[in-house]
Amino acid sequence: MSNYCFANHKIQPIENAGVPVSDLLVQRGYGIFDFLRVANNKAVFIEDHLDRFFNSASIMRLTIEQSREDIKTIVKELIAKNNMPYSGLRLIIAGGDAPDGYTIEKPHLIIIQAPLAKPSEQLPTNTLKLVSYNYQRQIPEVKTTDYLMAVWLQPWMKENGGNDILYHKDGWVSECPRSNFFMLTQDNVLVTPEINMLKGITRKNIIKVAKQNGIALEERKINISEFVTAKEAFISSSTKRIVPVHQIDDTLIKSDYSDSFAHKIYDLLLALEN
Amino acid sequence: MSNYCFANHKIQPIENAGVPVSDLLVQRGYGIFDFLRVANNKAVFIEDHLDRFFNSASIMRLTIEQSREDIKTIVKELIAKNNMPYSGLRLIIAGGDAPDGYTIEKPHLIIIQAPLAKPSEQLPTNTLKLVSYNYQRQIPEVKTTDYLMAVWLQPWMKENGGNDILYHKDGWVSECPRSNFFMLTQDNVLVTPEINMLKGITRKNIIKVAKQNGIALEERKINISEFVTAKEAFISSSTKRIVPVHQIDDTLIKSDYSDSFAHKIYDLLLALEN
Repeated sequence: MSNYCFANHKIQPIENAGVPVSDLLVQRGYGIFDFLRVANNKAVFIEDHLDRFFNSASIMRLTIEQSREDIKTIVKELIAKNNMPYSGLRLIIAGGDAPDGYTIEKPHLIIIQAPLAKPSEQLPTNTLKLVSYNYQRQIPEVKTTDYLMAVWLQPWMKENGGNDILYHKDGWVSECPRSNFFMLTQDNVLVTPEINMLKGITRKNIIKVAKQNGIALEERKINISEFVTAKEAFISSSTKRIVPVHQIDDTLIKSDYSDSFAHKIYDLLLALEN
Repeated sequence: MSNYCFANHKIQPIENAGVPVSDLLVQRGYGIFDFLRVANNKAVFIEDHLDRFFNSASIMRLTIEQSREDIKTIVKELIAKNNMPYSGLRLIIAGGDAPDGYTIEKPHLIIIQAPLAKPSEQLPTNTLKLVSYNYQRQIPEVKTTDYLMAVWLQPWMKENGGNDILYHKDGWVSECPRSNFFMLTQDNVLVTPEINMLKGITRKNIIKVAKQNGIALEERKINISEFVTAKEAFISSSTKRIVPVHQIDDTLIKSDYSDSFAHKIYDLLLALEN
């Protein structure tokens, strides 16, 4: 199967597309991206992702040559050409070639598509153990390409029996490297951090469906000391919607999510997509 | 002038060399590098730089395919082929292609050479104003490609009349984005931070020549509150050796460095190179 991407202003086979070694993305790790799911050859929640993509670029002072409509046209062409009905789309803005190796001059757009398993339409039964780590992402409201710590911690996570990492700073929870965190309190209030993290599109939709369906939800600070009182916990992301959490560090949360807020929210999200 | 680099296991024209869009360096900002100066077609302090390069790779769990001797051979060939007598060499280890976009699989070596002005053999008279910024680099003992904050802060730095940025965390000084920081106390002791920063090769050589020449030098914590008492301040780097500092934020340090510890250290460094 050939795979096309968008780079250097054109759709071309991915094996021909490289980022110049002089690019700020390569030399200084300077870039932003967004990642969205394609289902049935349609880009899911593309407007929300483009909102965030343009916002990330603006904060990082990366000018995007293409208009929003241009990008939507390219995405459509790429999806048609690749015909990978279930896949992921990665939109990247690279810092571009910098004669002094430091100053942003000509940021450029790259779009990559890669196959993804068709997501289940059921809440995953493979629940997660999260291991918490004291770390604050830099410029956390932006989806930068900086996953240095996340990639570096993979062996540590596995040694500790974790399936994912939960970042906190001195006890205050922010996010997982690629997803947002939610917890259900004893009073049946869904809580999720409100600062120092990236605001996911699925997170946004969870807040929306909770409000529409009378589920109490608060964006507020969460301390790791609250885990012992949690009735449920889950993470949210564009690829998997919601994945329940059975354990955080040594604290057992819940093992059977068949009847749960997580389950209810999952079904509401699914309905929103269709 | 054609310019050759080393990439994909061979020396090739730089315009043909790109980092695959699927590489962890592109997608996750996962890579390390080292930068060294070439003078008279010789790589200056290459052993020290290779020590640090292999150490950075080891901490980041990036396996280098080539041996130390292999790399020295490639560097020699590249220098001969490019014939840029005064230049900079950037050795990069990119995380490599990761099928899951996350796990380190096949890190690979890239070497780029770019012309540099022949450095003066005089202590620079263009002294610097540093502007301090509260920030701690992640994994600071490693020379990663993460310069997100440094590049992002350039407009802020210029707005504040700065020539370079000095990072501190809650008042405790660490480093500049691309150089180390030294200060001369009232008691004529040269002080430089000892933790939470990258240990530069020039920094190492300054410590060495200070010891050899009876100049008191301490590696210790430095608080920004000490700037008002500083008799001198300078930064050190491989490209410029030493550049004196006339001001940090609103604190004037010293304007005329013609007779100074900075000057003395500069001359000792120069002698060490020749």
